[in-house]
Amino acid sequence: MRFGLRVAVPVLALLIAPFAVAAETVRWDDQVSSFNLDNGMEVVVIEDHRAPVVVHMLWYRAGAADEKPGVSGVAHFLEHLLFKATDTLESGEFSKTVAANGGSGNAFTSQDYTGYYQRVAADRLELMMQMEADRMVNLKITEADILTEREVIIEERNQRTENDPGALFGEQANAALYLNHPYGVPIIGWRHEMETLGLQDTLAYYEQFYAPNNTVLIVAGDVTPEEVKVLAQRHYGPITANPELPARARPQEPEHNAARRLVFEDARVAQPYVRRSYLAPERDSGDQKTAAALMLGAALLGDGQTSVMTQKLQFEEKSAVYATAFYRGTSLDNTQFTTVVVPVPGVSLREAEDNMDRVIQEFMDGPIDLAHLDRIKRNMRAQEIYAKDNVQGLANKFGRALTAGLTVKDILEWPDVVESVTEADIKAALSKVLEDSLSVTGWLTSDAETVK
Amino acid sequence: MRFGLRVAVPVLALLIAPFAVAAETVRWDDQVSSFNLDNGMEVVVIEDHRAPVVVHMLWYRAGAADEKPGVSGVAHFLEHLLFKATDTLESGEFSKTVAANGGSGNAFTSQDYTGYYQRVAADRLELMMQMEADRMVNLKITEADILTEREVIIEERNQRTENDPGALFGEQANAALYLNHPYGVPIIGWRHEMETLGLQDTLAYYEQFYAPNNTVLIVAGDVTPEEVKVLAQRHYGPITANPELPARARPQEPEHNAARRLVFEDARVAQPYVRRSYLAPERDSGDQKTAAALMLGAALLGDGQTSVMTQKLQFEEKSAVYATAFYRGTSLDNTQFTTVVVPVPGVSLREAEDNMDRVIQEFMDGPIDLAHLDRIKRNMRAQEIYAKDNVQGLANKFGRALTAGLTVKDILEWPDVVESVTEADIKAALSKVLEDSLSVTGWLTSDAETVK
Repeated sequence: MRFGLRVAVPVLALLIAPFAVAAETVRWDDQVSSFNLDNGMEVVVIEDHRAPVVVHMLWYRAGAADEKPGVSGVAHFLEHLLFKATDTLESGEFSKTVAANGGSGNAFTSQDYTGYYQRVAADRLELMMQMEADRMVNLKITEADILTEREVIIEERNQRTENDPGALFGEQANAALYLNHPYGVPIIGWRHEMETLGLQDTLAYYEQFYAPNNTVLIVAGDVTPEEVKVLAQRHYGPITANPELPARARPQEPEHNAARRLVFEDARVAQPYVRRSYLAPERDSGDQKTAAALMLGAALLGDGQTSVMTQKLQFEEKSAVYATAFYRGTSLDNTQFTTVVVPVPGVSLREAEDNMDRVIQEFMDGPIDLAHLDRIKRNMRAQEIYAKDNVQGLANKFGRALTAGLTVKDILEWPDVVESVTEADIKAALSKVLEDSLSVTGWLTSDAETVK
Repeated sequence: MRFGLRVAVPVLALLIAPFAVAAETVRWDDQVSSFNLDNGMEVVVIEDHRAPVVVHMLWYRAGAADEKPGVSGVAHFLEHLLFKATDTLESGEFSKTVAANGGSGNAFTSQDYTGYYQRVAADRLELMMQMEADRMVNLKITEADILTEREVIIEERNQRTENDPGALFGEQANAALYLNHPYGVPIIGWRHEMETLGLQDTLAYYEQFYAPNNTVLIVAGDVTPEEVKVLAQRHYGPITANPELPARARPQEPEHNAARRLVFEDARVAQPYVRRSYLAPERDSGDQKTAAALMLGAALLGDGQTSVMTQKLQFEEKSAVYATAFYRGTSLDNTQFTTVVVPVPGVSLREAEDNMDRVIQEFMDGPIDLAHLDRIKRNMRAQEIYAKDNVQGLANKFGRALTAGLTVKDILEWPDVVESVTEADIKAALSKVLEDSLSVTGWLTSDAETVK
């Protein structure tokens, strides 16, 4: 392994000088501990010694929403290109090496993060770190890589989006919801911009964001914090921070003054539905109660068989084949609170929407079923406990939260915050969010005539 | 006058070396001629020797749509700040000097340009050039200027936008129309971003865009091209081009797949109305026919007392107090084709919209009244002829077109292009634009209950 452009400590110095000492390890509970490297890398260790396996995840605090305008999709494109050659690895060798060592791995891109992970036998952790640190700075992308991999991501867009009216509809609804913030741009990219993504666009993103002071390293499994610290110091420690890393300040939303609607008509739509999204606050570090209230509100309204929307629309009135509400609070900036109703054949989208509005209004006007709320809370507590058994799931949860501006403390406090939410908190949070002016209502249909 | 950071030719050199010869002057007709300076400044001279007056206009090919995300309003903010101090002028002295010389002047910002002009006695032209060239590179903005002038632009937003429901509605409709392009962001800026505009944001825009290779100089009135060339060489010629001027490539629109709607409710609305905008192509250099057809289509549909919408809705059916259609084709990127109906009291917005749709559909299904089309064309020809009498209006027309990617040739050919448009051209252009999926339909109302 060699070190690339941002490496300050020459190899010789490594041999004769001791490493700088990293900040002290904080042990949060019997499973989670964390520390920082001097170069700004945040490291979280999640222990699970039941099997000799580790999950090694490197998360960059940079996703699609950090792209410059006009190059949408470049974050995800770069994620693909990270499997090409480095100074020491051939193109494709990264994945081959993981597989040859009995491991598996992959990568993912979202609005707020880009992540890479491998699941391997615990004694292969160092190799993973060595290779992951290598491609943080030593990537060698060629014009040929750009041409071939660009075809791959465009084909990915074809499969995931162009061939799926619901996905296209979601894109258009999203773009209508966000008036200013880049969350209105799809993660995979607008097709016409993907088609022109080039080497310079990709390298510009790589050089700006791929640096240790922009990462969270999560190692979960049969490993101790002490072991992780030694290895992380050895492999990630020599990479210097990018002093020009920009603050994560995306353009924020202006006041929303007008309810928006859209109709997406596509002959391929088999099941028409209504979907309404409201701009909603996200979990904020040290201030998570509103988000917890919205999450519980969504669960009461539309999560599962016992939820209000499902009970009323699906079982009592039989006007819907499916109804749901969801809220994803783990987000760096303003997120969405969404409700969906899929009407039974014969019920129009206008009726479906009126039904949805009525059921939500009744919910807001009436008392909350406290036994229902308690069941939801109990279920969430149980899920938190079961989640401890799945280190990869835990690692994901930590990565998503830490790249969305939250801290380990926030993550660990979350169950108590959820527990503390009252009926009044839920009503207050929902009534602020369920404002017409904050909403986009979309109709997905095979035939616009039926919606007029 | 001194020269600022981008000036390569020292003053001494000016005294001993002849100027580089500018490109040859092109004389387009008996009124319009043009040439370029070596530093990339495009110069257009419009002669009118009937009165000893000139209009001096400097247009930058940079407007609100060239701003970086997150600093909306900075183009317009800088326009205000250009009246502050330079190396040699005190803050406010620019305007005082224009007035003391019996002139008047102002400035304006749009999506595609920022412009500055003075109307003065012809013998004061050189002084205007000297001062305008000075502030292109020698501006000295202070933190105090930022604080005071920021209050001014925020107050301007209050007056123009916040206090006008129609303007707020237009902003939200615009943001919903553009899914990706910065035309969706208001020229004056989103309030929350205006409030944080700082010195660095402003200087960054100034240093990037205020350079001679990003300008069109238009001098109109009692002056010859030869005189303008001597003065422009003397005052603008020594300013060097900005070699890092970026290409004007804004993020373009993705495919629009879903008709959008919005309802803007504001108790201050005295007269509710429905407004629909369609994304529409702009005039392209060498290819202006579609735009000419759309302009004629808008005129047929909704320009004035004899237009189809007005005749039908206002006079025959008496369901509207006002109806109009308009299209502004002079734009660097995709523009809008807009129709508006203001219903009479008692007619709902839904009815008004249905009426609008019906009348437009009838227009599209039936033959075009060729006498009507001919009257419109004759009227436009007459306006072109009368326009020659108003040099300031002509100068504006040239400035808008030249900063929107058009050429002098395009501008001069425009009347013939309009003349050549046939009934079939209009129908073809309209039928491509009047697509639901390209549209945003907005209702402005004082009471959302009435629109449900």
